[in-house]
Amino acid sequence: MNFSSDTAAPAHPAVLEALARVNHGPAPSYGDDRVMKQLRSLLVRTFETDELDFWITASGTASNALALSCFCPPTHSVICHAQAHIQVDERGAVEFFTGGGRLHLLPGKGAKVDYGQLADYLEAFDPRFVHETPPAVLSLTNLTECGMAYQPDEIAMRAERAKHFGLAVHLDGARLANALVFTGASPAEMSWKAGVDVLTLGLTKTGAVGCEIILFFGKAKEKGRELRARAKRAGHMPPKMRYLAAQAQALLDGGLWLALAAHANEKAQKLAAAFIADGHRLAWPVEGNEVFVHIDEHTLEKLREDGAAFYEWPTGSNRFVCSWATADAEIAALSESMTRSMRK
Amino acid sequence: MNFSSDTAAPAHPAVLEALARVNHGPAPSYGDDRVMKQLRSLLVRTFETDELDFWITASGTASNALALSCFCPPTHSVICHAQAHIQVDERGAVEFFTGGGRLHLLPGKGAKVDYGQLADYLEAFDPRFVHETPPAVLSLTNLTECGMAYQPDEIAMRAERAKHFGLAVHLDGARLANALVFTGASPAEMSWKAGVDVLTLGLTKTGAVGCEIILFFGKAKEKGRELRARAKRAGHMPPKMRYLAAQAQALLDGGLWLALAAHANEKAQKLAAAFIADGHRLAWPVEGNEVFVHIDEHTLEKLREDGAAFYEWPTGSNRFVCSWATADAEIAALSESMTRSMRK
Amino acid sequence: MNFSSDTAAPAHPAVLEALARVNHGPAPSYGDDRVMKQLRSLLVRTFETDELDFWITASGTASNALALSCFCPPTHSVICHAQAHIQVDERGAVEFFTGGGRLHLLPGKGAKVDYGQLADYLEAFDPRFVHETPPAVLSLTNLTECGMAYQPDEIAMRAERAKHFGLAVHLDGARLANALVFTGASPAEMSWKAGVDVLTLGLTKTGAVGCEIILFFGKAKEKGRELRARAKRAGHMPPKMRYLAAQAQALLDGGLWLALAAHANEKAQKLAAAFIADGHRLAWPVEGNEVFVHIDEHTLEKLREDGAAFYEWPTGSNRFVCSWATADAEIAALSESMTRSMRK
Amino acid sequence: MNFSSDTAAPAHPAVLEALARVNHGPAPSYGDDRVMKQLRSLLVRTFETDELDFWITASGTASNALALSCFCPPTHSVICHAQAHIQVDERGAVEFFTGGGRLHLLPGKGAKVDYGQLADYLEAFDPRFVHETPPAVLSLTNLTECGMAYQPDEIAMRAERAKHFGLAVHLDGARLANALVFTGASPAEMSWKAGVDVLTLGLTKTGAVGCEIILFFGKAKEKGRELRARAKRAGHMPPKMRYLAAQAQALLDGGLWLALAAHANEKAQKLAAAFIADGHRLAWPVEGNEVFVHIDEHTLEKLREDGAAFYEWPTGSNRFVCSWATADAEIAALSESMTRSMRK
Repeated sequence: MNFSSDTAAPAHPAVLEALARVNHGPAPSYGDDRVMKQLRSLLVRTFETDELDFWITASGTASNALALSCFCPPTHSVICHAQAHIQVDERGAVEFFTGGGRLHLLPGKGAKVDYGQLADYLEAFDPRFVHETPPAVLSLTNLTECGMAYQPDEIAMRAERAKHFGLAVHLDGARLANALVFTGASPAEMSWKAGVDVLTLGLTKTGAVGCEIILFFGKAKEKGRELRARAKRAGHMPPKMRYLAAQAQALLDGGLWLALAAHANEKAQKLAAAFIADGHRLAWPVEGNEVFVHIDEHTLEKLREDGAAFYEWPTGSNRFVCSWATADAEIAALSESMTRSMRK
Repeated sequence: MNFSSDTAAPAHPAVLEALARVNHGPAPSYGDDRVMKQLRSLLVRTFETDELDFWITASGTASNALALSCFCPPTHSVICHAQAHIQVDERGAVEFFTGGGRLHLLPGKGAKVDYGQLADYLEAFDPRFVHETPPAVLSLTNLTECGMAYQPDEIAMRAERAKHFGLAVHLDGARLANALVFTGASPAEMSWKAGVDVLTLGLTKTGAVGCEIILFFGKAKEKGRELRARAKRAGHMPPKMRYLAAQAQALLDGGLWLALAAHANEKAQKLAAAFIADGHRLAWPVEGNEVFVHIDEHTLEKLREDGAAFYEWPTGSNRFVCSWATADAEIAALSESMTRSMRK
Repeated sequence: MNFSSDTAAPAHPAVLEALARVNHGPAPSYGDDRVMKQLRSLLVRTFETDELDFWITASGTASNALALSCFCPPTHSVICHAQAHIQVDERGAVEFFTGGGRLHLLPGKGAKVDYGQLADYLEAFDPRFVHETPPAVLSLTNLTECGMAYQPDEIAMRAERAKHFGLAVHLDGARLANALVFTGASPAEMSWKAGVDVLTLGLTKTGAVGCEIILFFGKAKEKGRELRARAKRAGHMPPKMRYLAAQAQALLDGGLWLALAAHANEKAQKLAAAFIADGHRLAWPVEGNEVFVHIDEHTLEKLREDGAAFYEWPTGSNRFVCSWATADAEIAALSESMTRSMRK
Repeated sequence: MNFSSDTAAPAHPAVLEALARVNHGPAPSYGDDRVMKQLRSLLVRTFETDELDFWITASGTASNALALSCFCPPTHSVICHAQAHIQVDERGAVEFFTGGGRLHLLPGKGAKVDYGQLADYLEAFDPRFVHETPPAVLSLTNLTECGMAYQPDEIAMRAERAKHFGLAVHLDGARLANALVFTGASPAEMSWKAGVDVLTLGLTKTGAVGCEIILFFGKAKEKGRELRARAKRAGHMPPKMRYLAAQAQALLDGGLWLALAAHANEKAQKLAAAFIADGHRLAWPVEGNEVFVHIDEHTLEKLREDGAAFYEWPTGSNRFVCSWATADAEIAALSESMTRSMRK
């Protein structure tokens, strides 16, 4: 009954097999190997465009901060939701990688950046005023921190505003696969076709050992060399890149990532249904693999007692996350634990 | 005939097996898992002291820069050899992680920091003079950038000088196993017993996928929490740490790392003998797994033509590196290529 | 009719005379001169304690950021009000000087940090949680950004909370003289006696050419050397420090700074009375030399037409600032302009 | 007998008068005032080009680091002489302002960057090699740290090499007036006509209270807005900029700066002659207002005893600096002290 996070799950067996498959013979270091080249082709197919450049790290924090540091000068800021992972959970990585840039926080329901507030802020900002930190990037997150999914057109309208004022658009896709499965959108529709310049495509939560692809689309490609320089000096250019690329291959090829996300989403729906059946109230609609639910203190204790792992969320509810590895038996066990709790 | 670098070699099969072995069931994220705990015990045994703290990254650059940033304030400098990897090959990572600290370069034969120059520099420096950047750390590298090995007492005498002036002592051990095998010193003798406060213990070149352990000894342990905070915000705290820890386990347990280094060192000796037999002159004595050799242009071309991979070194010689995977057949093929070259 | 800012005023003649007075003969550079020594004694008398260290810059932004960078590591944050000058008007100086630290914004009426919110935030924060940026400093501003004055006990209660959780306490005193005059508190009561560790004592707005003293009290003194190192590398240690010290002497000696602030405060009261008499509503009580007032669009235009300088404030009202140089004639002219505006 | 530094001298009376002259009435803050506008015209005349932008700080360290940070990304380096002020005396300001950039040191006689070494280094550098820190700026200093003057063509040939490889060219002109007087070159010939993109024009040593102008020429003008943003967040945009601009006006208008430098240079020649007459050997030819001279220990003690102030230089000689305020009587007194020393 481990619903603490999708990062608690092991890697999918196909990922380990891929590591073993590339583990023979010498290979050029630092990204010049054959597997990286193959991955490029795979990304081109997956995102339906040749206008891309990419790099891989093993950490979502690293990929977010590296990506943003290429578009946010130290004198500027990144607009994001007040609950965004880059604000709440990455220990100031963006401030570090940008050399003293800043996050500008906006509110919004379900952890989606409020469109009106965004438009107003951008409209009101006077770029000639040297005293205030001007925005350089809009960063959105899909799934949001409340487990909700932006539709492509919700991203597109925010991106359009940002671009109108000269900002770059970043998408933190730590759980992008879950959002794609829920919305039915294609990777292209959810990224560059919606105005996203730079995407952090997370695969670790989907089923990798540690694999977070940074993708630069269209004109953003021109920053590819800067990205590599920044990756190198941040220690995110380990010599044996083939083992990072192989993970991505294993998951993207044949759509395994989407299949795994579909599994996780389905289990989350099942779990949500169990909570509802048991009389608990969801904090947010379940649009991916995360369930935020209000549970009374008595039941919480019972669940913990029975060994369920999950997080009390700062905003009041409790978070349960399903992964590719979540089994029906775990949901059944949790459900049973709830039922027993009520009987007492 | 790939002698380009020990990072070009694949991972040792035991490392891949270890990844597979830990790849089941959920585990706490960010280093709180069981494998990390087991590794701690293994490090205590390996280094014969309980007075240590550690963290792991997948990159030597990351581990060096993280380690140094805990001991070098942004207003200070790290003393190192002018050819040190942190100066020449890490794209300013130390400057980045320290927030604008600086490297102070010293000369020295065989890329060992010259003892007299070190002593003189430390003696002459006036710490009250606010205009000049004062040194905070001495960083040594074993094997050196010329493939030579510091004996423990060579480290100890330099460390003693540094500590006399209040500096911390760092050892970049990207090829520590090779140095241990050559000198016969124990890990403890080569590190904390010689005055090393913080060690970057590289295992990637030894045979890992990507595994570079930062070790804080003795009083330096107090910086363990800062190390984790810095690792987190640098994107070097990926969620699934068990896969990093498992690599270290596979190599350290039972001394596999030393066996692999012994193999690489032995092949380097064999390779050096072949060069000498062929009339070439070594640039430096071979004290690990690297051979630096002067080769005429004609032979170089022939070797390249025959598919040998190696690097022309900026300082004039050519570098050939052996690894755990280097086979006698490769050395024989290189030797034959040289012989054919002479016949022409 | 220039009410744009107290920085628009020229320097007080006594300041210029002081510059001329120290302008003879050679003097040691970088702060080792006689005038700096004399100033130290004057500060000891002014703040009734020998337990202090200090430095001077010509910029409030510089003094705030330098001061804060000595107490906020790059991995930590500074708590301040959402409208604080360090957040809104200093172009990310704190982020820059701390090497990527962060501001954590709290709300509060009249731009005073809300006590309850502060206490709750500090209570809720788990310092062991490595993912979130922990607070290291509480920064208050007196006068606040709404022109209101903290009483010493209001500072003391917030400082007590901050210190309970191990934070340092900073006071941005860009308009400290105005707050002292309004509250009747002594410099000591408003600073170290209220728990302030580090004070940025602004004299530029009071009447200097450019003179902002950083004061470290009590145990904070230990950071004096770090402060100088940071000042030097930020270019805030110009060689001829005597000219900065002389300004401070001219203003502090004999209490000129308080007399000038009293003048400015008095003119602000007079100005406020004129607004009220004219039927306008104050946005905040006038507790220093700033008047925030709601004015209809028609009158605003008339005032501008007649040459009045002031700022429309982002929060909806209009800011009029009086200085040591504000003359009754200017207030009368403004008043007359208002009256004429109504007649039309 | 104060020959410690030209920064030990007071400001020239004309500078103080200029401060008093602008000290009346309100003025827009942060550089939008009338004096700054007048100064722009004066700079256009002085440098014979309208293609310039500028900013002023009170510190040479600040102006150097601000200027360089606009042209050297954090991933790059600034080439300078191993004895350059930015390397030896500015406490890592360039590393700080660039966000972790680096200085790359080159040797050269008389502290002039050796042309051959520069050309070789630039030629050898492979910009595609992501591991090494590439150069972005060449920084020269005139007068050099040995008190020698670059001729315009010496700057031009180095600048040509730098520009050929895409670098920007910076001139640290802390003692530019002295170099102009010695070489007879015009400000334009010594700067943009010689390929200098950005000049730090020091007036503090010439006779200001504290006034160091950053000048961007030609295409570098495009960075003017970035310069202001960086100045603001570094605390180098004090509100009352008119007092900085007035100093520059006082010195540049009518060529006072050159007259003062001519005086200082002349006194240095006289002083050098006295040393030579007394049998001492100059370390470097005197080409400005600095005399580097070898003096025996006995004489040194005698000079100190008699109250002479000067610096023993790290490189073995002793530095004596003349300023606008140096009087013949001081030189005579020093000469007499030497003579007395010999009689003993």
